[in-house]
This record gives sequence, C-alpha cells and structure tokens, in this order.
Amino acid sequence: MPPKIKHLLGIQDLSVEQIRLILETAESFREISTRPIKKVPTLRGKTIINLFFEASTRTRTSFEIAAKRLSADAINISASTSSVVKGETLHDTAQNLQAMAPDVIVIRHSCSGTPHQLARICSAAVVNAGDGAHEHPTQALLDGFTILDHKETLQGLKVAIVGDIAHSRVARSDCLLLGKMGAHVTVCGPPTLIPPHFDKTLRLVGQTNASVAQQSLRVTYDMNEALEDADVVMMLRIQLERQSEAFFPSIREYFRLYGLSAERMKAAKPDAIIMHPGPINRGVEIASDVADGPYSVILDQVTSGVAVRMAVLFLLTGGKDESD
Amino acid sequence: MPPKIKHLLGIQDLSVEQIRLILETAESFREISTRPIKKVPTLRGKTIINLFFEASTRTRTSFEIAAKRLSADAINISASTSSVVKGETLHDTAQNLQAMAPDVIVIRHSCSGTPHQLARICSAAVVNAGDGAHEHPTQALLDGFTILDHKETLQGLKVAIVGDIAHSRVARSDCLLLGKMGAHVTVCGPPTLIPPHFDKTLRLVGQTNASVAQQSLRVTYDMNEALEDADVVMMLRIQLERQSEAFFPSIREYFRLYGLSAERMKAAKPDAIIMHPGPINRGVEIASDVADGPYSVILDQVTSGVAVRMAVLFLLTGGKDESD
Amino acid sequence: MPPKIKHLLGIQDLSVEQIRLILETAESFREISTRPIKKVPTLRGKTIINLFFEASTRTRTSFEIAAKRLSADAINISASTSSVVKGETLHDTAQNLQAMAPDVIVIRHSCSGTPHQLARICSAAVVNAGDGAHEHPTQALLDGFTILDHKETLQGLKVAIVGDIAHSRVARSDCLLLGKMGAHVTVCGPPTLIPPHFDKTLRLVGQTNASVAQQSLRVTYDMNEALEDADVVMMLRIQLERQSEAFFPSIREYFRLYGLSAERMKAAKPDAIIMHPGPINRGVEIASDVADGPYSVILDQVTSGVAVRMAVLFLLTGGKDESD
Repeated sequence: MPPKIKHLLGIQDLSVEQIRLILETAESFREISTRPIKKVPTLRGKTIINLFFEASTRTRTSFEIAAKRLSADAINISASTSSVVKGETLHDTAQNLQAMAPDVIVIRHSCSGTPHQLARICSAAVVNAGDGAHEHPTQALLDGFTILDHKETLQGLKVAIVGDIAHSRVARSDCLLLGKMGAHVTVCGPPTLIPPHFDKTLRLVGQTNASVAQQSLRVTYDMNEALEDADVVMMLRIQLERQSEAFFPSIREYFRLYGLSAERMKAAKPDAIIMHPGPINRGVEIASDVADGPYSVILDQVTSGVAVRMAVLFLLTGGKDESD
Repeated sequence: MPPKIKHLLGIQDLSVEQIRLILETAESFREISTRPIKKVPTLRGKTIINLFFEASTRTRTSFEIAAKRLSADAINISASTSSVVKGETLHDTAQNLQAMAPDVIVIRHSCSGTPHQLARICSAAVVNAGDGAHEHPTQALLDGFTILDHKETLQGLKVAIVGDIAHSRVARSDCLLLGKMGAHVTVCGPPTLIPPHFDKTLRLVGQTNASVAQQSLRVTYDMNEALEDADVVMMLRIQLERQSEAFFPSIREYFRLYGLSAERMKAAKPDAIIMHPGPINRGVEIASDVADGPYSVILDQVTSGVAVRMAVLFLLTGGKDESD
Repeated sequence: MPPKIKHLLGIQDLSVEQIRLILETAESFREISTRPIKKVPTLRGKTIINLFFEASTRTRTSFEIAAKRLSADAINISASTSSVVKGETLHDTAQNLQAMAPDVIVIRHSCSGTPHQLARICSAAVVNAGDGAHEHPTQALLDGFTILDHKETLQGLKVAIVGDIAHSRVARSDCLLLGKMGAHVTVCGPPTLIPPHFDKTLRLVGQTNASVAQQSLRVTYDMNEALEDADVVMMLRIQLERQSEAFFPSIREYFRLYGLSAERMKAAKPDAIIMHPGPINRGVEIASDVADGPYSVILDQVTSGVAVRMAVLFLLTGGKDESD
C-alpha cells in the first residue's frame, strides 16, 4: 500500500504508487455511473464542500455528481454569492468552514497555492480543483485514466501538449503526471506562451517527493515537430478573454500555426488519440471535424472525470467500500 | 398504453393518451407532498440536471422539489454562474453534460428550439422548462391538472386566455393542450400582442402527431367577448420589463381594457375559475381582490406543478413505482 | 414542557423554558457532527427552503449542513438569481413557496419584520436568519450555547457587547437572550452607534411574552468600563462598507477607542471568553492575537451554530427523534 493521501494538492506531491492507486480505484468506481441506480452508500454522512472562487460549471458539476453518487452531502459555495469573502482572509474562511466539520473541501481559486494554504489550516481533506496557473491534479488524473482506456501503459508513450503552456495549470499537472508515469512529453506553443526554461523547472519539481524522476520533457515551437509520431495529442484551451494582452497576432494566425487540423494529425501515429480539457474553441485551437472525429476522446475525459473524482473523494475520506 | 415518452419538448408532440397518462400519474403522486414524510425512493440513484439559462425561481424550485421528493439527485446549473457558456456552443455543453450520465436534463433557455437541439444530442431525457416564446409544456400540464380538480372534463370547456399572447410560451402550450383535449379556447389581447393568424398557425401545429385535431381556437381583441360564458379565465403576465417596446400606451390603459376585475368576471360563468402562471402583477393584468378571491386557483397551480413534474420525471426515467 | 415553538422569529417571543429546550436539544445533536457518519434520519422527507434575500455564506451553509445532517431536503433560493422577486410582492412569494409544501422556510432579508410577515402567511415554520437591524435569533442561541460550554450558567454572568450596536441584529438578539437568562449585559460603542434609550427600549421588548424580566442592561461609551470584570466579551463586526456614512472618524481611531487588544482584556476577568459573530475584521474591531488567542471561542461559535440549527429545525418540524 502506498502512503495514505491526506490532501490532493497537486500531482507534484504524489508518488507513482499513489497515482496508480487513484487510477485503480477510479476503475472500480467507473461502473457505478452506468447502472440504472447510480448510487452507492459508500460516503453516506460525509460532508463535501465545493468552494469555488472562480466560476466553473463542468468541474463543480463533476465533483457534485461524484459526491452524490457516493451518497455524500455536497454543499456548494461560490465566491460571487459569498459573504465569506467580504473582507475576510482566506485563513478565517478556512477556519470557519473547518468549524462546521466537513470531510472534504474542494477548492478552486485564481491564486496559486491557495489549496496548500487551506490544507495547512484545515483538518478536512483538501482537493485542489485548480489554483491559478499552478496545478489541476484531478484533470491530470482523469487524463491519465482516459489514456489508459486506449493505450496499454503510459510508460514510453509519446504525448504532445499544444497551446498556451504558460497560463495552463492543466499543462503543468499533465506534464508532472505523465513524466512520473514514464511518458515522453513534448510541449509546444508560440514562444510568448511557453515560460523560459519550462522543461528544466518542471523536471526539478517532478523529482520532489517522486519515486521516479521526470523521464523527459521537451519544448518546441514547431507543431509538426511536436506531433511527429505522437501517441497522444493534448490541445489546450486558448483563453480568448486574455487575447487583449496580445500573446499572438490573431486567432486565424494562431490556428494556422498551432491549431489541430486533420491534415496536421497525419504527423502523429495512425492510432493517436486527441484530448482537450474543455471547453473547446472550435476553429481556434482545434478544427471541428477533429474534435468530433473518431480519434477524439474529449468526451471520454468528461466521463472519466466523474470516476476519478469519486475515487479521490473516497480515498481522502479513508472510507471503507460498502458499495454493493 | 400510449407510446413511451422519451423527451418532453412540447405539448405539440404529445398525443391525447400521453397527456392523460401524465395527468393520471401526477394524480397518483399528488398525495406524497401531503405526507409527514414527503419522500419516496422511486428515483433513487437517478441524476436530474436543472440547466437554467434564464433566471427562474419558481420553476427551478418546483423541479428540484419534485426530484428530491422522488429521492433523485438534483444538480442545479445556472447560466449566470456558469463557465459552460464561455464561448462554448450548446452542442458542446450538451455533449459534456451527457458524458456525466444524467438521467434527465431540465432546460430553460431564451431561444426557441434549444431543448429540441439538446434532445438530438443527448441520450438523457430532456424536459423543456420554457424555451423562448415557444413552449412551456409542464406549465400547460399543470394547468390542465388544476382545471380537472374543479371541472369534470376538459372536453367542451370554454377557456379564455388573456394578455400578451405573442410573447407567451405558456399561451402556446396551453392552447395546444386544451385544443387536443377538446376545450374551446379564446385568446384575447391588444392587436399588438397577438400574432397575425395565431389561430390558423396553432391549429396546424396542433394537428401534427395528435390523435384529435384542434377543436376550436378563436381570437378576439375584446375582453368582454372573450370572458362571456367562460368556464376558465387564464390571465398572462405582462412583462413590464418589455414595456420600453411600447406594445400598449400605459399600464393604466392596459388594465382598463384587458385587466381582470371582479366587475368584468361577471361575464364569465358563475363558477368560473381564475388562473395565472405567476408571478402576478397586481393591478396590471389582474386586480388584487380577484387574484385573492374565492375563484382564484393560482396557488393550486403551484401545488399541481410539483405533482406534475414528479410524474414527468418518473415517466421519462421509465422507473418502476416503488413508492410505499 | 414549554409551549411548542411554531416559528423562530426572534428571541423576543421565546420564554426562558423555550430557550432552555432549544439549548438542551442542541446539546443532544452536537455529537452527530463528530461521528464518522454525520447523519441521522430524523428529518427524512422534510423540505427546508433557505430563502436568502441578502448574500450570506456562513449562515446559509450552517443551515444547509444542519438540514442535511438530519436527512432533510434543503432547497436554496437566493434573491440575486431569483425571479421570485421580479415585481412580485413578498406576500405572493411566500404564498407560492407555501404552495409547494415546505416544512420550514429559513429567511434572511434586509428589512426588519419580513420573517414575521412570512409567518402570518405560511403554514410552514419560519426561521428568521437575520432581518435588517432587528433580530438574528439563531445567532443569539448559538452564542448562549457556546457560553454554556465555558461557564456554569448564564445567570448573573457579566457580558460586554462592544461595537456598532445600532445596526446590529446580533446585539439585539443577544441582549434579549442574555437578559432573559439572567445575565448582566453592558453594551458599549461610540455614541453615534448606540441608539438613544437603547436600554429602556430593549427592557420593554424583553418583558413582552417573557417569564423573566430583563435583569439589567447598561449602556456605556467607555470600553474600559464595559470590560471591567466581564466574564464574556462579545465584539461586533464593523461593517466597513458603511464607513462612507462616517459614524466614526477613522478605523485607526476606532480601534484605539473600541478595538479589543490583549492589553485591554486585562480589565476583564482572567478567565473571560471572547466572542465574535464573524466575519471578523482583524485590526479593526479585534486585534489578530486576541482573535486567535486562548480565550477566543469564535470558532466554537461556528461549530455551535450547526448544532443549534439542527435543534431549531427539529423542534419546529415537531419530528420525533429517530436518531440512532
């Protein structure tokens, strides 16, 4: 047995064994969502707080469905309607929530490190559902889970991650997870959207607390190079709302250089799968026919999300499986 | 047995037998909300998503209560707090929700036809909770259910529907349902608020997929004529927020011509009932003493709403009744 | 047995026996939140509506958790996303909610008296979760509950309440409860933030329907006098958003005169406890080291809140305890 997971703050802190445990547990929960009665009593009487300081529907909904299918009580708190935040420090918000005895607090926040701060204060388990441009560990776990539905192993797999690497917590968490599991990752995007020394920084981070060092992480600004012989192509969302900052000249130009078209996919392996954390911008980072095409597993990722989050909530509450 | 109902998109698609089945099922669920323990395990383990792109409290609350009294898990998504919609097409939103394996998606949207679009994509059952000025089928069903509490049959009943017919999905759905069930409907309002050829259009629509043709639908601009000998008077809400478009000169003038007063009700049958989908504007389309008077069944409509929505959720999930 | 409590509108209406009953019931529910499975079936099949016209997280969350730990169905309605309020009178909103057969409506509103208005209309039990500057009875009850964790009895206890007395529903409810239970209360704040004749007014209010008259209520503008020999120091939140109205010259000045520092606490009894309804403004009404210090019971108050609200929901629904 790998050491018990107290909080899920980032892939950085997980060992290969812990990642495997989460993915195997998710595998066992997957089937529940296909039953006529999609509910097991496993987490009855547990209180899960979804504390979202950033707007989110898909992630919050996924956690809420995961909680309810395990019979836990889910409480949603969104910052926009929240008086918690009227002048209150995060420290005080956390202590106050803790005083109501939740079992898990799922937090999304625009500032990196917020979940870690919460975890230092709370005795409840903390799940990072996205913190700034730092980490989004359940996304990386569901990505790994989805890949394993289509490929034998992550070990030795060639994965291209393309887009706005600089602002993407998904890219960071995916690079760390894939690296730990022995995949070869190439990140690709315009030079303005890849931080300098991204590969070296992440290699250092990946080694911390990990039993396997970052196998390999490559950076390229040339999409054809990134896709060459790839087993998996992960496209990232371009945040059009940030386009005022002009990281690239135009959407049209962006698509021409870094958008995923059927033509461009020819560089990848014939059985390569295509992933995207969503929501997708059709015609911006990915062509519509590719997003809807036979190699796209984008919707499988969403389905995987529920199973992975059920596994995470289960493991963090240390509950015994009473599922029938 | 009438053919199974897959989605509830509009009254237009329902046969008379299907309408009867829903109303009879609602009758059997009505009593649950009067018990000390207002809950049956019928839909345990079913996931109901309330996807509201328009603000709504009463309809969303009614569906949420209906779901919970049947032990289903209800997930609320409102567009205002939703990142689903940040540049995402409805198609993608629908596919993403579908990937989380809900059993029913209840949708309200300001665009006509949105629920139909959703139904083409999703394998989950879709319930139209109001789409633009098109349909609001559960409202018509609860209206029919409420009338049957006070009148023997809908067949041959004289019903007046008064107000902003042009912008009312309630009016459309009610005309269709009442027509199919053999009632005689007169719609009434200022000429600017009734679409040209409303009667002919709706008669055509009503015949599609219906075993009984639209019996009769009459248009008048004279309220006294509409109310004459009526068994049921349905008042529609004037959307004051649209008054900038100046469909009528003033609220005072509107009430004088089309508002429901005790005096005016004398034209209707002595035992006529008064209905309104709510929220009411006192003194605009209906006088306060009439809204609160003995013939008003406005609050009965709200109570009926929970029973009808329980029936709809039950029938769409094809669940067996395990209620004790 | 004290007379059954139909609604919880304010401390003003409660007898000493009823207050004792609520506190004793809370005591019996307290332990549930410490179990691995924090849930009892006591209120299964009951519908609790949280109707919040003012933004609130901590109170709404506390009520929602209390409801769910008793297995009740909780429905949240917040005014900001609510169409209930588009031109609808509170009377109509209340009647509409009532028509859906809830068991309890928990209401927060910026206008004093709103819960009382609701209670006249609804047959559901109504809980005042804060109405304007009037009352916030569950806060006073949880304050009393928290004090009794640290002191033998409320009888004869010296309590100082310091801050913006004029705008505080917490201060009013606490004064009434503490007065009824025989404590000696001193309220303290700048003259601009204490209503004239506050003591006399409240003494009159407290006598209504109460079996014990208001023992003593004193007003002072001098914080040292208020704290002298106090057993309990309750600090109130300064609503910085109101500071434009300039009730005091500056935050710095306010803290110097009425802020709670370790130095100032020396005037109180050595074992005095420090309370605050939250959210706290560190360095405004209370120094950080005091808020986090050994005599602070601020977080205990939050924990007490869940137990007290469980008790209130239980007593108002008249349910029998089936907790195992």
